[in-house]
Amino acid sequence: MTDVPPNPTLEDVARMAGVSTATVSRCLNAPDKVVERTRVRVLEAVRELGYLPNFGARAMVARRTNTIGAIIPTMANAIFARGLQAFQEEARRLGYQLLVASSSYRADLEEEQARALAARGADGLLLIGLERAETLTAFLAQRGLPAVVAWTYGAEAALPTVGFDNRAAMRGLAEEVLRLGHRRVAMISAPVAHNDRARARLEGLRDALGAAGLGTGLRVIETRYGLDEGGAALARLMQGETPPTAVLCGNDVLAAGAIRQARALGLRVPEDVSITGFDDLELATLVTPALTTVHVPHQEMGRLAARCLVEMVEQSMRPRPAPLATELRLRDSLGPPPVV
Amino acid sequence: MTDVPPNPTLEDVARMAGVSTATVSRCLNAPDKVVERTRVRVLEAVRELGYLPNFGARAMVARRTNTIGAIIPTMANAIFARGLQAFQEEARRLGYQLLVASSSYRADLEEEQARALAARGADGLLLIGLERAETLTAFLAQRGLPAVVAWTYGAEAALPTVGFDNRAAMRGLAEEVLRLGHRRVAMISAPVAHNDRARARLEGLRDALGAAGLGTGLRVIETRYGLDEGGAALARLMQGETPPTAVLCGNDVLAAGAIRQARALGLRVPEDVSITGFDDLELATLVTPALTTVHVPHQEMGRLAARCLVEMVEQSMRPRPAPLATELRLRDSLGPPPVV
Repeated sequence: MTDVPPNPTLEDVARMAGVSTATVSRCLNAPDKVVERTRVRVLEAVRELGYLPNFGARAMVARRTNTIGAIIPTMANAIFARGLQAFQEEARRLGYQLLVASSSYRADLEEEQARALAARGADGLLLIGLERAETLTAFLAQRGLPAVVAWTYGAEAALPTVGFDNRAAMRGLAEEVLRLGHRRVAMISAPVAHNDRARARLEGLRDALGAAGLGTGLRVIETRYGLDEGGAALARLMQGETPPTAVLCGNDVLAAGAIRQARALGLRVPEDVSITGFDDLELATLVTPALTTVHVPHQEMGRLAARCLVEMVEQSMRPRPAPLATELRLRDSLGPPPVV
Repeated sequence: MTDVPPNPTLEDVARMAGVSTATVSRCLNAPDKVVERTRVRVLEAVRELGYLPNFGARAMVARRTNTIGAIIPTMANAIFARGLQAFQEEARRLGYQLLVASSSYRADLEEEQARALAARGADGLLLIGLERAETLTAFLAQRGLPAVVAWTYGAEAALPTVGFDNRAAMRGLAEEVLRLGHRRVAMISAPVAHNDRARARLEGLRDALGAAGLGTGLRVIETRYGLDEGGAALARLMQGETPPTAVLCGNDVLAAGAIRQARALGLRVPEDVSITGFDDLELATLVTPALTTVHVPHQEMGRLAARCLVEMVEQSMRPRPAPLATELRLRDSLGPPPVV
């Protein structure tokens, strides 16, 4: 990383990509006039250097609008609420207003909203997770619009990330489940397509199962985040002849719905079935029994993301924060498997 | 207001402030070069006229932006989540994107954000509740910026309202509480200052108590919406020598926190103390016992608010929707008072 200049110029990009500065310019302003191989090389250099085009010019004219945009997958539940509130408070402390849009977990809407926020003069964007339309990533690079990704961590990602290792966190929880003796384990997950957080959590469970020699036969139900959806998935899982003794849920909303449904089915948690969550939302301690879950430092993440984004906006820096630590919260919804 | 031009110009501002147009320009672009007294006068004129720099130019190019702004009091919990999601989906169906800002229940921030959304070209605004800075109401009128108020109902309100009668709804719940025999009743409320919904709910409880000849001695604790805050308030209420037998909470978040705290104190709900909520958020059926509460038709309200606002934007109509109906949801957290 020592070869990355702090304020990379068009010349730095041209040098790294082995092209002329005119070609770099063309790539950024009229990409369809450049052959793809060259364009890819230039955009890789842009990304690697964290180059922000026109930053000087932009800063001169621009006056900033002191507005930051955030695009979150959903406003319909509390998943992003606490982190976003902390993000907003820190941004405000630093002199920025926040406008929030929601993409309904759809890449096309995320891109549409990012473009709209850019058109309305947003100085920077907060995005969630690593997967998005390539055209959006290119748009951000070409516009030189600072953006930070939160709720996930990727050292090699195109955009700076402020988050945690979803895979390792779920693996840690799954290891605790296996340590208690569970062998028939199932997962209720959000749809993993276009959701790197959901996929990483599922992979973390598979990692733990594989390491324990239980690599096959994991039953996974994918469903939208929601209490009713979590409940319906639990009902399906418990119908079979050999139902799971532990159900790991992709987040606390699914897990809370599963616990409510277990009660409706006359199942005791954790005596008949253990249920775990992920996130440590407020509702984790509202349900009975309280949820064993992975604590995500939502407020710390929100504040750090705001500081990183403002740093990018004001100083043209590419911040490289370390991943945040998560913690297991062992509560009453996880116990040993029933003795058969 | 007849002397306020619909699209005020720089000249209008200069005339009202009694300065040259160059001074107005300087005030807006380099305010530190203008003595404070002049600056204050110019900014007052800007505010009074609802002048937006470059508005003419923008309006010429602009036509609609197909963006709607919403300013909600908080994103930190689920109070506004479901209604807002429905609002967004309906707005999207009608061709509008939604940008959301949060005011932290502060009138000054609400005004700041409304002005920022207007400056970013919002075609209309969704606001919550009836109380706001007079300067904001004037700004909306002067700009002719369509705005709808939700989460409350007021036939005589300055802006069209899409909502329900908070006072009558809480009165209905309180009457049910009294019918069961409760005489020592307390309320955990959000701070009523600047929050007409919270105040109306408190008044609804007083209405019921008054009608039952129990008009005096109601104990009210005002606290921020939050699980921990609801719990702390319950703990204080239950300390006295004659604790209440029923605690009515201003919303479900406070009530859920109160139920959790009751359990921590070793109190049975409803045998030792009844606890009720307001809103019928998802968490109302997650807690044990499930919350008796007032069901608010959040999704219907969100959809209707979107349709009304788009009607105002596109047809310059002032919609007058009827108030929405709320319903009592009698669940297990309310029972008869303990026999002493």
